[in-house]
Amino acid sequence: MHTETHADSARYVAGLAKLREIDGDAGEQVIEALKDIAPDLARYVIEFPFGDIYQRPGLDLRLREVATVAALTAMGHAQPQLKVHIHGALNVGCTRTEIVELIMQMAVYAGFPAALNGMFAAKEVFRERDGRGTPE
Amino acid sequence: MHTETHADSARYVAGLAKLREIDGDAGEQVIEALKDIAPDLARYVIEFPFGDIYQRPGLDLRLREVATVAALTAMGHAQPQLKVHIHGALNVGCTRTEIVELIMQMAVYAGFPAALNGMFAAKEVFRERDGRGTPE
Amino acid sequence: MHTETHADSARYVAGLAKLREIDGDAGEQVIEALKDIAPDLARYVIEFPFGDIYQRPGLDLRLREVATVAALTAMGHAQPQLKVHIHGALNVGCTRTEIVELIMQMAVYAGFPAALNGMFAAKEVFRERDGRGTPE
Amino acid sequence: MHTETHADSARYVAGLAKLREIDGDAGEQVIEALKDIAPDLARYVIEFPFGDIYQRPGLDLRLREVATVAALTAMGHAQPQLKVHIHGALNVGCTRTEIVELIMQMAVYAGFPAALNGMFAAKEVFRERDGRGTPE
Amino acid sequence: MHTETHADSARYVAGLAKLREIDGDAGEQVIEALKDIAPDLARYVIEFPFGDIYQRPGLDLRLREVATVAALTAMGHAQPQLKVHIHGALNVGCTRTEIVELIMQMAVYAGFPAALNGMFAAKEVFRERDGRGTPE
Amino acid sequence: MHTETHADSARYVAGLAKLREIDGDAGEQVIEALKDIAPDLARYVIEFPFGDIYQRPGLDLRLREVATVAALTAMGHAQPQLKVHIHGALNVGCTRTEIVELIMQMAVYAGFPAALNGMFAAKEVFRERDGRGTPE
Repeated sequence: MHTETHADSARYVAGLAKLREIDGDAGEQVIEALKDIAPDLARYVIEFPFGDIYQRPGLDLRLREVATVAALTAMGHAQPQLKVHIHGALNVGCTRTEIVELIMQMAVYAGFPAALNGMFAAKEVFRERDGRGTPE
Repeated sequence: MHTETHADSARYVAGLAKLREIDGDAGEQVIEALKDIAPDLARYVIEFPFGDIYQRPGLDLRLREVATVAALTAMGHAQPQLKVHIHGALNVGCTRTEIVELIMQMAVYAGFPAALNGMFAAKEVFRERDGRGTPE
Repeated sequence: MHTETHADSARYVAGLAKLREIDGDAGEQVIEALKDIAPDLARYVIEFPFGDIYQRPGLDLRLREVATVAALTAMGHAQPQLKVHIHGALNVGCTRTEIVELIMQMAVYAGFPAALNGMFAAKEVFRERDGRGTPE
Repeated sequence: MHTETHADSARYVAGLAKLREIDGDAGEQVIEALKDIAPDLARYVIEFPFGDIYQRPGLDLRLREVATVAALTAMGHAQPQLKVHIHGALNVGCTRTEIVELIMQMAVYAGFPAALNGMFAAKEVFRERDGRGTPE
Repeated sequence: MHTETHADSARYVAGLAKLREIDGDAGEQVIEALKDIAPDLARYVIEFPFGDIYQRPGLDLRLREVATVAALTAMGHAQPQLKVHIHGALNVGCTRTEIVELIMQMAVYAGFPAALNGMFAAKEVFRERDGRGTPE
Repeated sequence: MHTETHADSARYVAGLAKLREIDGDAGEQVIEALKDIAPDLARYVIEFPFGDIYQRPGLDLRLREVATVAALTAMGHAQPQLKVHIHGALNVGCTRTEIVELIMQMAVYAGFPAALNGMFAAKEVFRERDGRGTPE
C-alpha cells in the first residue's frame, strides 16, 4: 500500500511548481476538480507527468508542449486537455502561429476532422486569452 | 477530373525536394511502393504534406517533426510511418535524446503501451542508422 | 430478410430483462431514443449484447462491468455509454471505490486525459445517484 | 513558401463548387469559422479533399459519402464532421434508410457505442432537414 | 444461459451462407481459427454480422462493403480484417479502382498513414487474387 | 532535474516485485529491452504502474488485470502489451474461460475485429503456457 514519504513530497512539490509554470490556472482547476472523487489521481498527475517527465532535461518545455498539443489533436478525444495544453504551449513560449501551424499539420497524420476540431479548440483558447489580456 | 498543370508541377517539384530533405530514402521507398497500385496517392503525398504543409513558414522543420513523431506514437497504429518520421526528425536536426524524451512523454497522454511501442520503433531506427554509419 | 421468430423473442425477452438488471433506466432511455430512427438497432442492442453476451456464464456480471467501464474509459469517445455502464457497474455490485480505482488505472494504458475524462464521468454518475438517494 | 498561382485557383474554384454541391451551407460554415484563425486550413480543405479527391472519377459521390459517413461513425471522435457528411450523403442522393443502415452496420466493426452515437447524430440531421423542409 | 434453438440455427444457416458469399475462404478461415479457443465467438460472427446485419435490405452488399473497407482503413488497427473485406468488396462487385479510390479518400478523414497502410493491404489482396487468377 | 532518492528506491523495489508477481518473465523482458535506449522509461514502468497503481488497495489484482486486458483488447493497437497482460491475468488467478469471455465481450464495445485480434493473442498465450506446462 502506498505511504506518503519525504521524497514523494519532493516530487509533488517540484511537480506542482511545474504544473503552475506550464498550465497556470487551468491545470490547478483540474487538480481541484479531482479533490473530492479521486485525490490520488490528482497527486499522480502532479507527481508523474509534472514531477517526473516535465522535469527531465533533454527536451525543452516548448518542444514538450508542441509534442503534447500535436498528440492530443491527433487523438481527438481529449478536447479539455487539448485546451489546457494550448494554454500551456503559449505559457512556455510557443507563438499562436506555431500552435496554428502544428494543429494544421495534424490534418496530414490524423485527418482533417481532427485538425478542424483542434483548430476550434485553439480559437476558444485564443479568445479566452484575449478576453483577459494575456500576452500572446 | 484532375488534369496536371504547370502549378501542380511546381507543388510537386517543391514537395519532392522537401520529402527528400526530410525523409531521405525511406520517403522515396513509400512513393515507389505506391507506383503500381495508386500513383495518384503518391502524388498527393508529395503535393499536400510536403508541397503545401512542410513548405510553410511559421513552424520550423525540427518542430514539425517533433509534432509528427509525437502524434504517430500516440495514435499507435502507424508504425511504418513512425519509423520514417523518426528518421526524418533526426535528418532535420533533432537529437536521439530528444526523440527518446518525446516518445517517453507520450506515456502520459496515450499510455505506456503506445510509448513502449514507439520506443521500440526508435530502437530499430537507431540501429539502422548505426548500421550504415549515419551521424546521429 | 430478417423475420421475427419465436426464438428471437426469447433472446429479446431475456436481453431486455438483463438490460434492466444492469443498466436500469439509463439503458431503457437509450432504447427509447432509438425507437423512431432505428428500432432494429434497439432490438440488436437488446438481443446481442444483453441477450447473448451478458447471459453467458464464465464471467460474472461484476467482472463484465469492470471490463466495460475500463474499455469505454480507454477508448475515450463514448462518454454517454461510459456513464450508463458506470451506473451498470454500481447496479451489479461494484463499489464506488472500485470504479474510481479502475478508471484511475486507465491512466497507465490509455493516458491521463482518458482517465481524467472517465473520472469526471464517474463524478457525474455519483452525483446523479446521490441526488436520487441510490445506495452506492 | 507557398505562393498562390493560377492553377491553385483552378483547384480552389473546382473544390469550392464541389464543397457546395456536397455539403451545402454546413460546409461553408466550417470554411467561414476558420477564416480568422487559419484561413489556409480553410483553403486546404477546399483544395485537397474537395478540389482533388472528390473530383476524381472511379468512385461516384454517393459511394464516397457512404465511405465518409462509415469512417467518421467508426472513428467516433468527429461528431461535427459526421453531421456535415450525413447532410452531404443525403445531398448527393443517399436515402435516409441507407444512412441508418450503414451507421447500424458500424456496430459490427467499431462497437455499439460508436453506432449509437452515429445514430443520434443522424437523428439530429434528419430533424434539422425536417425543420427546414429539405426533401429526404 | 444460452441454449441453441431452431431460430438460432436459421440465423446461423443464413449467416454462414452470407459469410461465404461475401468473404469466401478468408471468412471461413477466421471461423476455423476460432474453433478451439472460442467457438461461440465464431458463432456470433456468423449470427450477428452475417445473419442479422448483412441480411438486411435497405443497403446493397456493394455499399455495405464500401462502408466496411472505409471504416477498417480509417480505424487502422485491424489489418487482417481489412484484407478479408477488400476481398469481400471485390467478391460482391466492387472494382479494384473503387477500392483504391475509397482507401485513398481515407487520407482526408483519418490521415495519410491510415490510407497508406490500407493501400498496402489492398496491394497484397490484389496480388493474392492475381496469383490464383481470380477475376478482378 | 530528477535525482534518484531513497523513496524512489522504495517505489522501485515494491514496483519490481509487483511486476514480477503479475507479469513474470514477460514483464522483465520489456524492462530489459528498454535498458539500452531508455532506461528511465523502464524505471517509470516499474515505479508508476507497478509501484503506485498496482499497489493500491480498493481493487484486487484479478479485477485490475480484467480491466487491463479489456482496455488493451478494445484499443487494438497494443498487441505485445495485451499478450503480456493475458499472461498477467492468468498469473493472478483469472481463468482461461474468463479471459475468453471478456475478450469476446469487447466485440460489443470495440467491434468484432478488435475482439478477434484479442482472441488470437489469447490463443498464442495459451499455446505458450501449454508449451511450458504452466498451469492454466
